[in-house]
Order: sequence, then structure tokens, then C-alpha cells
Amino acid sequence: MNEKAFQDFYPDELNYCYGCGRLNEHGLKLKSYWDGEETTATFKPRPYHIAIPGYVYGGLIASIIDCHGTGTAAAATYRAEGREMGTEPALRFVTASLHVEYLRPTPLGVSLEVRGKVKEIKGRKVVVNVTLSAEREICAKGEVVAVRMPEHMMPKISP
Amino acid sequence: MNEKAFQDFYPDELNYCYGCGRLNEHGLKLKSYWDGEETTATFKPRPYHIAIPGYVYGGLIASIIDCHGTGTAAAATYRAEGREMGTEPALRFVTASLHVEYLRPTPLGVSLEVRGKVKEIKGRKVVVNVTLSAEREICAKGEVVAVRMPEHMMPKISP
Repeated sequence: MNEKAFQDFYPDELNYCYGCGRLNEHGLKLKSYWDGEETTATFKPRPYHIAIPGYVYGGLIASIIDCHGTGTAAAATYRAEGREMGTEPALRFVTASLHVEYLRPTPLGVSLEVRGKVKEIKGRKVVVNVTLSAEREICAKGEVVAVRMPEHMMPKISP
Repeated sequence: MNEKAFQDFYPDELNYCYGCGRLNEHGLKLKSYWDGEETTATFKPRPYHIAIPGYVYGGLIASIIDCHGTGTAAAATYRAEGREMGTEPALRFVTASLHVEYLRPTPLGVSLEVRGKVKEIKGRKVVVNVTLSAEREICAKGEVVAVRMPEHMMPKISP
């Protein structure tokens, strides 16, 4: 596992994502890493991330899968291009589509393990499959279709 | 439009959802209403609900679509059964799957309009199509497959 997370390599001006931005003080600050050919992240929901009491909110699960998916897309593209993460031009992905299947209720109060696997890299598009587990049981699985951020979305002013 | 939102009819012990629970003090408190045969909700993201600066975080969009979908599923099932909302036994839905397509970046700083339409009610399952618009343009569309909450998820203790 690398010491520095994928998200820590995002340029500052693109590092305010609520789900995984290093610079969003209100955000979830998800951190994703390589683990061999797969990617991994761990996240412990806050006590108020409730769906039905005792279970994790589905929108949070979707958020974690989303950010782990776009992070994996960036890291995998650097790898596919034989580039070190963080080298210029920066690779930053946005979500084109997100699909989540909730297989069983996700218990609140434990850390969640997230694993990603690249299904396809094609041009500016990367498809990532993600599983989310609690206590070694897969609770949700998702597919993220990520695309390279279009130039016109580049921030012109600081947030 | 009714005065009371779908979510206001959820029983107290099932009303802690981070996305739409009346009793979750940290939550988003989404409120959904009938508008003819469709359902509607309005939500203004907070300034820190950022994806790329200037645009709304995709996980928040997924969350809003999710909660509006399950709320619509409950309201539509009451209607289909010819029952007033809030009558016993309470109807509460959880998400079996969520699909979101991000059609264009959603601008931050304006209210988002959410509209739901029931595609199918079949046994304990309700499929809801949802659109999310900013400034009258559809930015995302989603499909929520909601199922009636299983009995074993009923909270036994207060959260």
C-alpha cells in the first residue's frame, strides 16, 4: 500500500470534493490506495450516517463508491500511461454514471472496506467495479463510469 | 402540493435517515411532495457540497435521488392501496438498487428541482424514475428500485 492516497495527488484546485477532497473541511476525506491490481479504501461512517437506525445510509455508500471509483480511474490511467501519480498534466475524473446494488443492510459502527477493480479503460472513459464490505461480508457493489474531467470544468477562481 | 412531506409521515423510529429524516439533526432533511401524478422536492446544496469547485458533488445528487425515490415509493404504495399516508401499518422503503446518470455538471449555488415518477409497483418492490434539474435543465437522472423494509430491520432500540 502506498503512503500517499490517490486523492492526495489531485491538484489543490481540484481537491475540494466533499467525498474525498483533502481541502474540504466538511467532507468525508476518503483515501484510496493500490493493493496489487486492485484498489482499496477504508471508511468509518459517522454515527449520524443513518438509514434505518443501526444501518448505514445508502447515499453515503453511493458516495464512497463514487469517489473510490473516480480515484481508481485516475490512478489506473496514470499506470496505463506509465506515469507517476501527480505528474503533469494532472488526471482528474468525474462520474458519468453510478450504479449501486444494496445486497444487504450495512451495519453502522464498524469500518467499511472498499475495493475497486478496473473493468475497462477506453479513451477518456474508465469503468470501475467496486465492492463495499462490513465485517468481511459484501454489503453493496457498484459500477462507476468515470470520464476525464472536461477542460471547461477547470476552476477559474478559488472556491 | 401537500403541506406535510412524505418523510414527515415516517414513524419516529424510522425517521433518522441522514438524507431525509426529520429527526437527524446532521442530515439533509429532504422533503418530498405529490404534484399531480408526479412527486417533487427542492434542495439547495450547502456551499461545501462540492465536486469540482462550482459544481455539486455527485454523491449528494445520488443521495437526493435515493431519498426522493424511497419517499415516492412509500407515498405511491399508500395511494395504490387507497390509504391515507401515515396510517398503520407504516410503509417504509429501503433501496435495493440505485442508478444515476450525470448528464451535465450541476451548478452549485442554486436550488435543485427533483421530480419522481413511478415506473412500476410490483409486490413489495417499487421502481421510481427521478430527474434532478438546476435552472430548468436536467443535470442528472436516476432510477431507484425500492423495496418495503424487511421486518428484521425494525429498530429495537432508539438510535
